[in-house]
Amino acid sequence: MRMYDIIQKKRNGGALSEAEIHWVIENYVTGNIPDYQVAALCMAIYFRGMNLEETTALTFAVRDSGERLDFSDIKGLRVDKHSTGGVGDKTSLIVAPIVASFGVKVAKMSGRGLGHTGGTIDKLEAIPGFQTDLPVEKFKEIVNDIGIAIVGQNAELAPADKLLYALRDVTATVDSLPLIVSSIMGKKLAADDDCIVLDVKTGSGSFMKTAEKSRELAEWMVAIGKKAGKRMRALITDMDRPLGFAIGNSLEVVEAIRTLQGKGPQDLTELCVALAAHILELAEKGNYAACEKMVRGAIADGTGLQMLARMVKAQGGNDDWILHPEKFPTAKYSRIVTAQEDGYIVGVDTEGYGVASLLLGAGRNTKEDVIDFAAGIVLKAKTGDFVKAGDPIAVLYSDKESGFDNAETRLRAATRIGKEKPREMPLILDVVQ
Amino acid sequence: MRMYDIIQKKRNGGALSEAEIHWVIENYVTGNIPDYQVAALCMAIYFRGMNLEETTALTFAVRDSGERLDFSDIKGLRVDKHSTGGVGDKTSLIVAPIVASFGVKVAKMSGRGLGHTGGTIDKLEAIPGFQTDLPVEKFKEIVNDIGIAIVGQNAELAPADKLLYALRDVTATVDSLPLIVSSIMGKKLAADDDCIVLDVKTGSGSFMKTAEKSRELAEWMVAIGKKAGKRMRALITDMDRPLGFAIGNSLEVVEAIRTLQGKGPQDLTELCVALAAHILELAEKGNYAACEKMVRGAIADGTGLQMLARMVKAQGGNDDWILHPEKFPTAKYSRIVTAQEDGYIVGVDTEGYGVASLLLGAGRNTKEDVIDFAAGIVLKAKTGDFVKAGDPIAVLYSDKESGFDNAETRLRAATRIGKEKPREMPLILDVVQ
Repeated sequence: MRMYDIIQKKRNGGALSEAEIHWVIENYVTGNIPDYQVAALCMAIYFRGMNLEETTALTFAVRDSGERLDFSDIKGLRVDKHSTGGVGDKTSLIVAPIVASFGVKVAKMSGRGLGHTGGTIDKLEAIPGFQTDLPVEKFKEIVNDIGIAIVGQNAELAPADKLLYALRDVTATVDSLPLIVSSIMGKKLAADDDCIVLDVKTGSGSFMKTAEKSRELAEWMVAIGKKAGKRMRALITDMDRPLGFAIGNSLEVVEAIRTLQGKGPQDLTELCVALAAHILELAEKGNYAACEKMVRGAIADGTGLQMLARMVKAQGGNDDWILHPEKFPTAKYSRIVTAQEDGYIVGVDTEGYGVASLLLGAGRNTKEDVIDFAAGIVLKAKTGDFVKAGDPIAVLYSDKESGFDNAETRLRAATRIGKEKPREMPLILDVVQ
Repeated sequence: MRMYDIIQKKRNGGALSEAEIHWVIENYVTGNIPDYQVAALCMAIYFRGMNLEETTALTFAVRDSGERLDFSDIKGLRVDKHSTGGVGDKTSLIVAPIVASFGVKVAKMSGRGLGHTGGTIDKLEAIPGFQTDLPVEKFKEIVNDIGIAIVGQNAELAPADKLLYALRDVTATVDSLPLIVSSIMGKKLAADDDCIVLDVKTGSGSFMKTAEKSRELAEWMVAIGKKAGKRMRALITDMDRPLGFAIGNSLEVVEAIRTLQGKGPQDLTELCVALAAHILELAEKGNYAACEKMVRGAIADGTGLQMLARMVKAQGGNDDWILHPEKFPTAKYSRIVTAQEDGYIVGVDTEGYGVASLLLGAGRNTKEDVIDFAAGIVLKAKTGDFVKAGDPIAVLYSDKESGFDNAETRLRAATRIGKEKPREMPLILDVVQ
């Protein structure tokens, strides 16, 4: 095989064979195919697309490009929930302990945040003592013992995706359905879960800017997951508003705890209930209505919160902070951002909120950056709310004052204020199964 | 400026600004933009195209990417003829001395052959003693003195084109009109001629496989050349047959001499007459009919051949061989290739003929290869001719027997024999001015 012929075939609108796709991925990972040929292929795929067979082959090739996890010695059904990325998305911290409290196993290896999106691992590290780099045997032991553990990704899962994503990111080839599908599912399928519920974000801050495109993405991911033998479901959720009010690591942990206490923001609570109920239904714990009731019960009686505290304790963290979240320190400095005019918040660019949070120190620009756990944003008004000039729309938190001006500018630019009350949109737009 | 934004703009169908295009080329040449981003941009250009303004900007950016020749101290109008590549194309050796004999100046810096196409410099080096690496002052002195000199390219003209072409060649982005135009014209405009006549090949062995595409290519090159202040003309010529009968360095020199003696193959003679007459018309030596008559006169009375001999002598070559071409040695070995069936030669793949010639030793696979000047092919039957099984269709020449089998296979595969006499096609399909 010659890479030139493969690029040309795709460029001319042909469908690549499974053998060709595996050959490309294998040889790209080993360095036999240079970046510039893969960049040209990605751009040809951007224009010509890939059919479901090609996309499946690409997904499996990405999955098989490195180590694959083997959790067969964890007893019981292993479940996971995966979001296509979100700003202020702390759902894993809420959904995972709830479902674990019903006996399904959550053996989660999670990533760190980079750029404007946060990572679950960073959020957990805001809890003092919490260990995210446990040896794999210890990790499995905790899952078998209490039902849940969340650690950082050590194993090099799907290294082809890392290479491909870095390349796509600088060649304007990120927005391609088959490339997005194979990236997300290639990594996801290298883990070893039985049931996967996907939270597919739609709107300004997501890969997919329209609901139709998001639905298509969800359908392809569900179809490919099923081909790989997984029980699959996908929710399509609105990302044109942040989830809850908190953006930033310890701010989000506290909000997650409040939600597990039954005192969380309504949108965040509803999404977490839905995600957890779908997982439990996939795990055959009852029909959807029964599962939803179980989930609401686990919030009402504190079972979910207890499970989070057990996990934190098992992983070396101070569980006292989980039961007394007021212990999380607040940042040294804060600034209130106020509305400059009267009007409704008609929409927000959540990506802009993510960047503002990053500028405050809550995230990383490069892998080496150190995170300020207390930094972030607490929103005081959200999409649909009416504000008067001078009303607070958000409070910024940081241990350094230097980021406030830029963060405020970004936050303002990301908040659209208008005269008409915006039409209320459901948070969950669709379910694909 | 960010390369990412430029790739994305083109990917989305936008037109790049002159400033953006110059920025890309400058930063690519200096190594600030990596190959993979340029590969992605080339593929986006393949799909989205470029308008005439963008293509002009790209051409000028390529032209300005390195040294530019300055021949202002050569007296008189400087003319050049450029072919978009051809197998067995020895027209420069015929056209250049003819037009020089009418007082226009030919200060030609020419390339070497690589792959299946030959180069004028290699052909001239088949003449014993001929110097192709004269110092530039000596080169200009000869042009001012006798009117013509042809030397190898020393200056690094249009280095951006070298980089871009090497990248396009391995990323399936060669077949793109704006990229072809800017490549050819970027190099051409870095030279310092007043009048340029382009020989745009169409057919199997060329960049452009159809006459319509070749016409478009010709129109864009003529338009951009005029924007750069040149007098321009382009002939669109059929490449589905080789020019004349000879392919290979000394074989072609001998055929060029025969043509200047008025004893050349009809197709080659007619194309050379047309090219030379168009050059003289551009140089205002008379209307086309008058110029054509002058050219035929220069062949009939030997003026063109005398001019070639003077150039060879001035550049250190043995002009005796020009006047007595039988002195060129023939190759050590030869093989007659015969037809395997009765029929008409309905068409040939000239690129295949070029590869066969390369296999015999007449060309270079890599820059380091040493050329066998006597190697090559003499055709015994051409498109439209009827052959019987056993009739010779070509004679192969080489100093090594080892290449004959492969060369014969390639030559046979490139020769289509059929039962119907093919429709006779004109050699010159169109003239763009």
